[in-house]
Amino acid sequence: MKSERIILGIDPGTNIMGYGLIHERNSGMKMINLGVIHLSKYSDQAIKLKKIFERTLELIDQYHPDELAIEAPFYGKNVQSMLKLGRAQGVAMASALYRDIPIFEYSPKKIKQAITGNGNASKEQVAAMLMGMLKISETPKHLDATDGLAAAVCHFLQRKPVANAKSYSGWSQFLKENPERVK
Amino acid sequence: MKSERIILGIDPGTNIMGYGLIHERNSGMKMINLGVIHLSKYSDQAIKLKKIFERTLELIDQYHPDELAIEAPFYGKNVQSMLKLGRAQGVAMASALYRDIPIFEYSPKKIKQAITGNGNASKEQVAAMLMGMLKISETPKHLDATDGLAAAVCHFLQRKPVANAKSYSGWSQFLKENPERVK
Repeated sequence: MKSERIILGIDPGTNIMGYGLIHERNSGMKMINLGVIHLSKYSDQAIKLKKIFERTLELIDQYHPDELAIEAPFYGKNVQSMLKLGRAQGVAMASALYRDIPIFEYSPKKIKQAITGNGNASKEQVAAMLMGMLKISETPKHLDATDGLAAAVCHFLQRKPVANAKSYSGWSQFLKENPERVK
Repeated sequence: MKSERIILGIDPGTNIMGYGLIHERNSGMKMINLGVIHLSKYSDQAIKLKKIFERTLELIDQYHPDELAIEAPFYGKNVQSMLKLGRAQGVAMASALYRDIPIFEYSPKKIKQAITGNGNASKEQVAAMLMGMLKISETPKHLDATDGLAAAVCHFLQRKPVANAKSYSGWSQFLKENPERVK
């Protein structure tokens, strides 16, 4: 295992895509960047998909992440919306596959639980916890931006069961609730 | 409109992907290639998606199609299968988006109807009609291969409402049944 790595986290949706990048070093992590891509302004679905693909590829080529963490709901309201979501995920994943970057998927519930200790936490609670963990002083303009960052941090926490366990109540609670998840 | 063009047709699935290439010239068409990519041997979904993306990109870079026609079911049994299908479509579409190739989607019913005149035609009926239209003497090894080809031919027929109308009973029947489709 590399002692240092960059994780790109994304939350690809059909209206907005959030992304966040963290740098892990010496068992700690630092935020590199976070942001959103607004897609609702494009009415054409192919253009939305193109934007997701291009932007994800740009992020990969700019920051050279070692791993991609993706927020991936496995259930949805209806088959129509799941097809659209699958396509959005697919094009985002394609850019990582194209650059041979391993992909890790996490459900929204798992991400919330890993970060806050509560699988049903609100977006605000997740954002507040992330700000504390990453020492971000300014509240992100768009809460959706933190969804991508949350996926990256969730992935970071999966491989760091011991380090920092005491610093994050979310993680230690997750350990208690999910002892079988710790390898 | 170019008087000559190459159409790549694909039917991306999670177990098998069929593709077909046709060359349109002087209102006629000729098959360039058709084939399948077997995906069921890969248990890992990310590898399946990678194969779909890479193979589609290879086909694009080898044959330089002007347009991509894709068989895209809009409804499915459940949200799980639609998410997987959406991802398969998404990675295939990403390769076309990456190379700036316009994408055209057709439902399975529309493809069957355009080719055979019957939206509920069997795979065998579609294959038989394609063989006649494209003067293919040998039955393709895999019927799934003809699904990609069918998407390409369906797309060809959309822009050719008059040419060859009398040669194809399927198409002339389609005309009769769908007068509003002819622009």
